[in-house]
Amino acid sequence: MKKHNFSAGPAILPATVLKEAGKAAANYHGMGLSLLELSHRGPEFMAILEEANALMREIIGLPDHYHVLWMSGGASSQFFMAPMNLLNEDETALYVDTGVWADKAIEEAKAFGNVQVLASSKAENYTHIPKDFKIPKTAKYLHLTSNNTIYGTQMRKFPKSPVPLVCDMSSDFLSRPFQADQFGLIYAGAQKNLGPAGTTVVIVREDMLGTVHRHLPSMLDYRVFAKNDSMYNTPPVFPIYVSMLTLRWIKKSGGLKAMQRKNKAKALLLYDEIDRNPLFRGTVAAEDRSHMNICFVMNEQYASLEKEFSALCIGNGMSGLKGHRSVGGFRASTYNALPQKSVQALVELMRDFAEKKG
Amino acid sequence: MKKHNFSAGPAILPATVLKEAGKAAANYHGMGLSLLELSHRGPEFMAILEEANALMREIIGLPDHYHVLWMSGGASSQFFMAPMNLLNEDETALYVDTGVWADKAIEEAKAFGNVQVLASSKAENYTHIPKDFKIPKTAKYLHLTSNNTIYGTQMRKFPKSPVPLVCDMSSDFLSRPFQADQFGLIYAGAQKNLGPAGTTVVIVREDMLGTVHRHLPSMLDYRVFAKNDSMYNTPPVFPIYVSMLTLRWIKKSGGLKAMQRKNKAKALLLYDEIDRNPLFRGTVAAEDRSHMNICFVMNEQYASLEKEFSALCIGNGMSGLKGHRSVGGFRASTYNALPQKSVQALVELMRDFAEKKG
Repeated sequence: MKKHNFSAGPAILPATVLKEAGKAAANYHGMGLSLLELSHRGPEFMAILEEANALMREIIGLPDHYHVLWMSGGASSQFFMAPMNLLNEDETALYVDTGVWADKAIEEAKAFGNVQVLASSKAENYTHIPKDFKIPKTAKYLHLTSNNTIYGTQMRKFPKSPVPLVCDMSSDFLSRPFQADQFGLIYAGAQKNLGPAGTTVVIVREDMLGTVHRHLPSMLDYRVFAKNDSMYNTPPVFPIYVSMLTLRWIKKSGGLKAMQRKNKAKALLLYDEIDRNPLFRGTVAAEDRSHMNICFVMNEQYASLEKEFSALCIGNGMSGLKGHRSVGGFRASTYNALPQKSVQALVELMRDFAEKKG
Repeated sequence: MKKHNFSAGPAILPATVLKEAGKAAANYHGMGLSLLELSHRGPEFMAILEEANALMREIIGLPDHYHVLWMSGGASSQFFMAPMNLLNEDETALYVDTGVWADKAIEEAKAFGNVQVLASSKAENYTHIPKDFKIPKTAKYLHLTSNNTIYGTQMRKFPKSPVPLVCDMSSDFLSRPFQADQFGLIYAGAQKNLGPAGTTVVIVREDMLGTVHRHLPSMLDYRVFAKNDSMYNTPPVFPIYVSMLTLRWIKKSGGLKAMQRKNKAKALLLYDEIDRNPLFRGTVAAEDRSHMNICFVMNEQYASLEKEFSALCIGNGMSGLKGHRSVGGFRASTYNALPQKSVQALVELMRDFAEKKG
């Protein structure tokens, strides 16, 4: 049976990428050796890293004065590394609180300087993106979360800012074009649109670095990664390799514009059904609806049918549709690699179910 | 042609592990989904992590008051995390300097407290392990490096210490039995005897934690990993999975005693040839010779033959034999997964070469 993988992350990757990854783990390019057992300083991995960097720059359209860093761990490590590398104790960083992850970023930053929460939708359980805020010119940076996986909200556009933007793009990175030079720093855990868990991409403008006075351990210093081209120590070879394969796939599939077009089509298909179907309703403000994570619940009068519909989804090969515990209901993550036909299958299931129960 | 992988790391892994890893990356247990695209909170990965922890405890014989933590990144991150988690600014940590990695650990520790280098073999290019030192009782811990990959030295036994031992075991972890309760903290990057690059195991005694006063970011706090069973955030799923497969293989192969017996046999086979063969000589003190990384050079009068012998090795399917630039010559890494027949093939090549040239 065909599987439909709606997991929020680690998430679906292109089928061709997974096939190639499996071959490389068993026997890399017919060498008789696995990629997992090759030296990271050997020609094979050096070529992989070089291609990953070149593809990342090309796909994003990244100006030369930005570094691409491949780090270990997830975006959670960037919650403290960004302020540790950017914010002095007497300086102020601005944060927009759009969910649990933004909130964790705020908490971690407090250890390094002054943190001002410029806006928050916490009181409304993060069902919308705050937009009306003034950005003080004296701040060191403004931190945003472009897409909120748990709640299904997404920033359609980024604010014009007099201070550098720092953005956690983990859950919509490479899902749409963005103007890189709007940002001072971008970070994204790989395990949504890019690759498996185990690496995080940091994109940083050269002039953002070297302005803090505190001691930085080598492995926490963006400058060390920039200077050593992410090879100060052994990098997470396999996660970077799979990410490189996904970057190849994105390029071949038409780049970020094509990703955006397909993601929008998938999202609208599902949102239309949610709005049309009497059993379901969306959970977030229409203008802030994410094109990556689509959250919906059963209308109150049908709440008792939730388990039955869940079981029906699983019975039809659909995995990862359970909503986060803080929202409940359902969440369909429709990342780059999710085919339109998976969304179509879900929409048809919702439609059939409503007809049976209506 | 059969490949002989003498790489120092990332290094050879058991053939059955690599085959299984390749299958899992393409299609995990016939689910129709790759392990790379499954949620880390799902039953599949939870079972993997549980088994990895149980096997690690069983294989080492780990007492209950020790935590097993699966972290991101390599041992280089532990160079600063260990002192950050263990050492207050007014306390003293002792270090034995046995090579470049120990030296990096020393440099990173200096930011967190007083660092006293108890002994060093730096002046002799780290060709032996210092043994005559007194351990002050007032220190917070004593840091050791059990095996020095670059130089090919290994601690045959660990000193009796009045203060907790902290040990970087990266390059000989799980290659021989060790008494875990001799140590307060052990860390080891996976990419030698355990798995691919991308995860590091930290084994820490419960009472080592919670004694420092400084702020620790969540992702740098051993207690957060202990409390959340390495699942505070998304862990490096695939590197942990492959490590679990290797742990299964170690158990099935007879555990650490069997590993030690085989590793010793391989090492002695090669050292005997190095000592016997007029073309070559070992580079380190006989009593400190590593059973993991075997360094040797050509005797001065044959130095001009080095390139020819290198080419011969490569021509015979042997990879990773080039010595580290700071030592030169050759380095054969003979980790757990390297079969005896690979060492035998190298020994025969050395013998034949000497006969031809002698």
